[in-house]
Amino acid sequence: MTLTQPAEQPTFAAAVPDERLLLGPGPSPVHPDVMAAQARTLVGHLDPWFLQRADEVNTMLRHVFRTTNPVTYAVSGTGSAGMETSIVNVVEHGDTVIVGVNGVFGGRIADTARRAGAHVITIEAPWGQVFDPQQVIDTHKAHPHAKLVALVHAETSTGAHQPLIDVGNYLAGTPTLFLVDTVTGLSGVPLEIDAWHIDVCYSGTQKCLSVPPGLSPITFSPKAEAVLDARTAPVQSWYLDVAALRRYWGEERVYHHTAPISQVIGLHEGLRRVLDEGLERRFARHREVGELFQQHIVDRDATLIAQEGHRLPQLTSFAWPDHIDEGKLRRRLMDEFSIEVGGGLGAFAGKAWRVGLMGEGATHANVDRLLDAIDHLLDTA
Amino acid sequence: MTLTQPAEQPTFAAAVPDERLLLGPGPSPVHPDVMAAQARTLVGHLDPWFLQRADEVNTMLRHVFRTTNPVTYAVSGTGSAGMETSIVNVVEHGDTVIVGVNGVFGGRIADTARRAGAHVITIEAPWGQVFDPQQVIDTHKAHPHAKLVALVHAETSTGAHQPLIDVGNYLAGTPTLFLVDTVTGLSGVPLEIDAWHIDVCYSGTQKCLSVPPGLSPITFSPKAEAVLDARTAPVQSWYLDVAALRRYWGEERVYHHTAPISQVIGLHEGLRRVLDEGLERRFARHREVGELFQQHIVDRDATLIAQEGHRLPQLTSFAWPDHIDEGKLRRRLMDEFSIEVGGGLGAFAGKAWRVGLMGEGATHANVDRLLDAIDHLLDTA
Repeated sequence: MTLTQPAEQPTFAAAVPDERLLLGPGPSPVHPDVMAAQARTLVGHLDPWFLQRADEVNTMLRHVFRTTNPVTYAVSGTGSAGMETSIVNVVEHGDTVIVGVNGVFGGRIADTARRAGAHVITIEAPWGQVFDPQQVIDTHKAHPHAKLVALVHAETSTGAHQPLIDVGNYLAGTPTLFLVDTVTGLSGVPLEIDAWHIDVCYSGTQKCLSVPPGLSPITFSPKAEAVLDARTAPVQSWYLDVAALRRYWGEERVYHHTAPISQVIGLHEGLRRVLDEGLERRFARHREVGELFQQHIVDRDATLIAQEGHRLPQLTSFAWPDHIDEGKLRRRLMDEFSIEVGGGLGAFAGKAWRVGLMGEGATHANVDRLLDAIDHLLDTA
Repeated sequence: MTLTQPAEQPTFAAAVPDERLLLGPGPSPVHPDVMAAQARTLVGHLDPWFLQRADEVNTMLRHVFRTTNPVTYAVSGTGSAGMETSIVNVVEHGDTVIVGVNGVFGGRIADTARRAGAHVITIEAPWGQVFDPQQVIDTHKAHPHAKLVALVHAETSTGAHQPLIDVGNYLAGTPTLFLVDTVTGLSGVPLEIDAWHIDVCYSGTQKCLSVPPGLSPITFSPKAEAVLDARTAPVQSWYLDVAALRRYWGEERVYHHTAPISQVIGLHEGLRRVLDEGLERRFARHREVGELFQQHIVDRDATLIAQEGHRLPQLTSFAWPDHIDEGKLRRRLMDEFSIEVGGGLGAFAGKAWRVGLMGEGATHANVDRLLDAIDHLLDTA
């Protein structure tokens, strides 16, 4: 970081960005109505008007999560804050936790759980592959007292789309909680919190919901709430303590922390747009647009990283042939076309791209614009 | 919380609030330029354009904090997330921590430190009073191995304005860190991070900076950074880990979590406005407007709660005479005049008001508007 003398008063111009077409792994493009909503006049976090709107957000989140869970709200932080909330509220020191790691975000769950004092058992799969449910079930059978089993529904680092229902059905008959990361999944591919017996689940706003980053929708099942209520030690985080936040979001309206009001109003508008489209139509749009892009990028000699049959349509990770300098291509895409895509992570750094066609970004026009730009860049490389 | 069936699709109107004059303990009024800035087109969190703007935010924060500390940035959460960041990064299990508690926020520091495994020694003072520096110094002398001493610069629950320089000068000669909560203080009353030897300090955006809630500016001194570097256990929070965030905000630009981009751009504009006014002029404006209000409210038989000579101008806590129903008066002020003020907390609940004249709200016109409304309500009670 650069040092500055406090006595020199810095002077900077107003921050006015160029238009970018956001086709990376997030943030996704945001509709102007959502941007306008979060720019509306500010009200207080205990204003009855605001509390009603926050209740509406929670009701809309229940619809999108497909749940009746009373504890469903947006954590005041980005997706990783939702991950941490989900873990630290149910895990106590010494608990065993089983985590499926087949990309960056499974690894982050394991790291967060270790920091919370858990004994972490990881199940590994190659990046891009999904877990066979039986493998997860067998691991649980070897550790039947595990506090939770965690899987990533939509791995943002690889584009793998994990099936969840079999593991959920199995864990429902055990005392173990089922924790699911759907940061990149929610409203892009089907997710059924209640029907699939998912107990703890979190997402982000800046992916398929197409709302700026800053909030993390979460939901806790009654089974997970019972674990909260049976804790013997306080939750290690004051800021993320769900039991305290229940009293703010619930009937009592007990002040906890100042909610990020403008963002909640932005999310309100974003969720209105999601429900106005309808979940089924939204899933179909993501599927159609994503599959179209995947076909066309394979035609350009790219290799899809996620396992066939388990590919997210909204997030495609693919490797370029060796002779292509992906970093240079990506920089030119930004500089010459103002289109953002993501680079690969981990073993795919310097080799792969991650293309998000999420939320407002999942359109045929965007696929055409991106492919035309890629073709131009490949032709002029 | 209310149950909803996932099958019933909820339909809500767009969220368009009435104009409110925000004269409570936060959020404070926000200038339209700041609201417009956070509604500008979204860019990615690794976009070079955004990283430059974020660096500018950090440079402006150093100026406002009066520090050269390299580790100075905005935490991706509200003030309480900044509090938790400040504590969990420097405290390890079993550390002794000394906390001055003379209101809600000192109590919250103690709670957060206990959750992080600290042995907490509290120094108590009646709500509204400040601590005599010698009392703090004597407590430290009895516990010279304390990891940190924490004081609240601007107690939002009482309006007390804690002197800091003597404690800072003393602790500078010890291995103990000086931690200061200035959520309601920053840019409203003088604060000198470097000159007063403050090692860890956090604020909020929604008070005297007049930016919507959602971010928490923090700064860590080199002495505090050395404590980070000497930790034996990982920080319990992944989301708030300063050592990891240093690598995102620093030269390396290592991805950590998706920054709340729109809010950072809003803070950029808010800080530009603060620096354009100049800190000295901003302090003088808060002082003049706050003292004027305090004189006039005393003329209406209110009793100021904070100790004479140690009153924040930007946040006034006062008790109404017993015959006045503060709750009814406050509701009428909202319903009939659309002005928000805050109620008392703790022992002052149901008796006191908290009036904030913070940031854009600290104007003579707002004092007149509030006093005229109060006079009308008292006349028609």
